[in-house]
Amino acid sequence: MLLESLREQVLHANREIARRGLAPHTFGNASGIDRSGPEALIVIKPSGVDYATMTPADLVVTDLDGRIVEGKLRPSSDLDTHTLLYREFPQIGGVVHTHSEFATSWAQACRAIPCLGTTHADYFHGPVPVTPSLTAEEVAEAYVRNTGAVIVRLFREKSLDPVAVPGVLVAGHAPFTWGKSAAEAVEHADVLEYIARMAFRTLLLEPSVTGLPVFVGEHHYLRKHGSQATYGQR
Amino acid sequence: MLLESLREQVLHANREIARRGLAPHTFGNASGIDRSGPEALIVIKPSGVDYATMTPADLVVTDLDGRIVEGKLRPSSDLDTHTLLYREFPQIGGVVHTHSEFATSWAQACRAIPCLGTTHADYFHGPVPVTPSLTAEEVAEAYVRNTGAVIVRLFREKSLDPVAVPGVLVAGHAPFTWGKSAAEAVEHADVLEYIARMAFRTLLLEPSVTGLPVFVGEHHYLRKHGSQATYGQR
Amino acid sequence: MLLESLREQVLHANREIARRGLAPHTFGNASGIDRSGPEALIVIKPSGVDYATMTPADLVVTDLDGRIVEGKLRPSSDLDTHTLLYREFPQIGGVVHTHSEFATSWAQACRAIPCLGTTHADYFHGPVPVTPSLTAEEVAEAYVRNTGAVIVRLFREKSLDPVAVPGVLVAGHAPFTWGKSAAEAVEHADVLEYIARMAFRTLLLEPSVTGLPVFVGEHHYLRKHGSQATYGQR
Amino acid sequence: MLLESLREQVLHANREIARRGLAPHTFGNASGIDRSGPEALIVIKPSGVDYATMTPADLVVTDLDGRIVEGKLRPSSDLDTHTLLYREFPQIGGVVHTHSEFATSWAQACRAIPCLGTTHADYFHGPVPVTPSLTAEEVAEAYVRNTGAVIVRLFREKSLDPVAVPGVLVAGHAPFTWGKSAAEAVEHADVLEYIARMAFRTLLLEPSVTGLPVFVGEHHYLRKHGSQATYGQR
Repeated sequence: MLLESLREQVLHANREIARRGLAPHTFGNASGIDRSGPEALIVIKPSGVDYATMTPADLVVTDLDGRIVEGKLRPSSDLDTHTLLYREFPQIGGVVHTHSEFATSWAQACRAIPCLGTTHADYFHGPVPVTPSLTAEEVAEAYVRNTGAVIVRLFREKSLDPVAVPGVLVAGHAPFTWGKSAAEAVEHADVLEYIARMAFRTLLLEPSVTGLPVFVGEHHYLRKHGSQATYGQR
Repeated sequence: MLLESLREQVLHANREIARRGLAPHTFGNASGIDRSGPEALIVIKPSGVDYATMTPADLVVTDLDGRIVEGKLRPSSDLDTHTLLYREFPQIGGVVHTHSEFATSWAQACRAIPCLGTTHADYFHGPVPVTPSLTAEEVAEAYVRNTGAVIVRLFREKSLDPVAVPGVLVAGHAPFTWGKSAAEAVEHADVLEYIARMAFRTLLLEPSVTGLPVFVGEHHYLRKHGSQATYGQR
Repeated sequence: MLLESLREQVLHANREIARRGLAPHTFGNASGIDRSGPEALIVIKPSGVDYATMTPADLVVTDLDGRIVEGKLRPSSDLDTHTLLYREFPQIGGVVHTHSEFATSWAQACRAIPCLGTTHADYFHGPVPVTPSLTAEEVAEAYVRNTGAVIVRLFREKSLDPVAVPGVLVAGHAPFTWGKSAAEAVEHADVLEYIARMAFRTLLLEPSVTGLPVFVGEHHYLRKHGSQATYGQR
Repeated sequence: MLLESLREQVLHANREIARRGLAPHTFGNASGIDRSGPEALIVIKPSGVDYATMTPADLVVTDLDGRIVEGKLRPSSDLDTHTLLYREFPQIGGVVHTHSEFATSWAQACRAIPCLGTTHADYFHGPVPVTPSLTAEEVAEAYVRNTGAVIVRLFREKSLDPVAVPGVLVAGHAPFTWGKSAAEAVEHADVLEYIARMAFRTLLLEPSVTGLPVFVGEHHYLRKHGSQATYGQR
C-alpha cells in the first residue's frame, strides 16, 4: 500500500473534522500531498464514507490531475478543488474543507471576515477573504474545479500569499483551509471557525467596529511567524 | 409481535431525536410505515414515555387511519398528523417531528428558510416552506389532523414534491420532516436544524442576502439526487 | 433525621440544576415543602456548597417563616424568597431558582417572554411575566423577602394563577420557577430556559412577530393540563 | 524543585482554562505568585505547550522582573503582562489570560460590559472595563509589557480597586482576570465569560437597557464581599 504514513495523517485529519464538530454527517474532507517522489501523490478521503469506520486502506491516492493511482472507492466529490489548490499553491501540504457553522454563515453572507482581534492576527495575515460567486458557465463547465479556480484567481488578484492567509470562504458554500500538512490545515479550519464566531458576535455588538489597528495585527502575526517569532519553544 | 424490524428502526429513530438534541424531554416523535402488506401499518412512539426506557414492545401499531392494531400504550398525541402525511405522500416511509431549537425559532417567526448555501441545496430543493397558521375553526375541529392537512395543502398549492422538499415548518409550532425511512427522516430533521442555525446567522450578518443563485442550488441538489448523482459510493 | 425522602428529592433537584447547566458554580438552589404535618416544613440547599459533594444531611430544614428546625449549615441566601412563595402560593410543593443564561438575559432586559409557540403554550399559560424592579427602600429593608413579595404582588395584580404560570423573571436578576414538587419545579426551570432561547432567536429573526394566536395556545395548554388532557399515558 | 505546591496550583489553573473551554489550543495562560520569601517568585505556564501533557516541572519560575529563576522551557509569551500586574497590584496572587469567546468579542468591540444583573454584581463591582488601544509606539517599544501598563493606567485613572474589579478587557485582544490565587483568577475568568454571554444577549434583546440600579448592585456585591457578607458558610 502506497504512502502508509500519509494515509494515517490524512485519516487522522478527517477524524479531527468530525471530533471538533467542523462538519456534520460526511460533509467535509481532508487531503495531504507527498511531493517528495518524481510525481506528487495526493491522499484524500473517499466520498460519503463514515469517519468512524474509515480505515487507511479506504483512502484514495491520486496524482496531481486527480487520476486514481490506488484505491477501490470513489474519491471525495471535492477532489478537483483539492488538486487545483495543490497545483497552484506549491507551498502547501494539506487541504481541508469543512461546513463549520459560523465560517459557513460568513460564506453564505458573502462577506470576508475582517481582522478584529489578535486571535485572528495570530493565524491570518489580514481578513479571511471571500470569493465571488461562480458564474452559471463556470458551474456548468466544471463546478468543482472552478471552485478551486475562483479561489486561486482571488489570491492572484489580491496578491495574497497562501502561507500568510491559509484559508478562504467560498461564497454561498463553505470554507477551505490549508497548511504545511493535513494536520495544520485542520488546525486552521478550527481556528477559522473560532474567529468566525467571535467576529460574528463582535459585529452584532458593535456594527461600526473598524478592526484591529494594522500595527497590532502585524506585531501579533510576526510573533508567531517568520524568523523573528517568539511564540512557543525553539 | 407485529413488525419487529420496523419497531427496532422506529425506536432507534426516536432515540436519535434525543441523542442529537433535537427535542428535550419527550417532545418529538418518529414513526415508520410498512406498505408491503395488504394494509399499510404504521409504528409510532407512545405518548409521553421517556426515550431511555422505551422498548420495541412499547411502540404502537396503527393502520393508516390511526386505529390501534397492536399496543397497550396511547400513541403519540401527534399521530393524526403522521397518518395524514402517510396517506397523502405515498412516497414516504418515515416521519419525524421535533422541537429542534433553530428550526422551531423559524417556525415561530413564521418564516420559510431561504436556500442560502450548498449545505441547504444538498438536501432541500428550494426553501424550507412554512405553513400558514391554522384557523380557529381548524384548531377546534381537529387540531392534529388539520396540522397535517395544512402541510399537504401547502405542498399542493406550491406544487412541491415531498421527495425533493423533505420537511416543513408548521407556523407557531415546530418542524416535521420525512424520508424513505424513519432513519432518513431523522437525518433530515438533523440537517434541517443545521441549516436553520446557519441561515439565522447569515441573515443577522447580512439582512439583505438574497440567497444562492438557482443554478448553483440546482447543481448541488443533482450532485446528490437522481440518476446523475455523483456523491457517495455506487 | 427529619424528612429523609424529601431531602433526597431536593438534593436530586439541586443536582439537576447543575447537570442541566442551569446555573454555574453554586448559583441556583432548589427547595421542597412537606405540608402534611401540623406545621409545614421546608427542605432547602445550604448556601455556597458544591453540588457534587452535597449529601442529604447537608440540607437545611426550616419552618414556613424560615426558622431553622434542623441543620448545621446556613441555608441558601435566597431562603426568604422561597418561604414567602410557599406561604402565598399554597398550591406549590417545590421552588427552584437558577441563573440559566437565556432566561436571565430576558430578566436583565426586563422583558416578559411572549408566547410565540406551542412549546411555550404546553407549559406556560400566557407570557412568562417579569417583575418590576425593587425600589431602593425594598432592597434596604429586606432584599430577599421583598424579591418574593414583588413576585406575589405581580401575580395578584395580573390575576395570574401560579399553577398555570409556574415561573417568573425577576427584573435584573434571574428566574424563579415552581411546581407540585422540587422535581417539577426544576423541569419548569429547564423548559423556561428552552423557550427563552427560542423566543430570543425568533425575535431576532422577526422583531414584528406578534405571537401564537390565543386559540392555539389555549388548545395546546389544555392538551396537557386539566381534566380534558390527552397527552401522555392515563 | 522550587515552589512545588504553587506549581501544582498553577498547573491546575491552566488545565481549568482548557477544561472550561476558555481558550482553544494553547491560547491562554495562568500564573501564581509566592510573596512570602525575601523575593517574590512567580510560577507561569511555558509557551505553546499542550495543557494535557504539561507537568509541574514544565512550569517556569521567574522573579518579579521576569528573569527566569528555574525552568528549561520558555515562559508564556505574555509573561511581561503578568509580572507588571503583580508589581502594580500587590493584593493579587494569581493572574489568568484567556481568549474566551464572548469576553473576547466584547474586547474586540472595544466595549466595557455594563452591569446588567445580579450575577455580574456578585463578582464585579461596576462594569468590566475595557482598555484603550495601544499606540503604535507602545506596540513597537514593548507590546506585552505595555499591555500590562495600559491596564494599570486605566485602573489608576478610573480609581478602580483591582480587588473589587478582578478583571479587564484589553481592546482588540482578550480578557485578563486575577484573584487571591490562580484558582480564584480562573474562577473569575469563567464568571466573566458567563456574564459576557448574558450581557451580549440582553443588549440584542433590548438595546436601550440601562443596567441594574446601583443600589441593587451594591447590595449584591456586599452580600458576597467584605465584613458584612452573608453568602456561603462562615
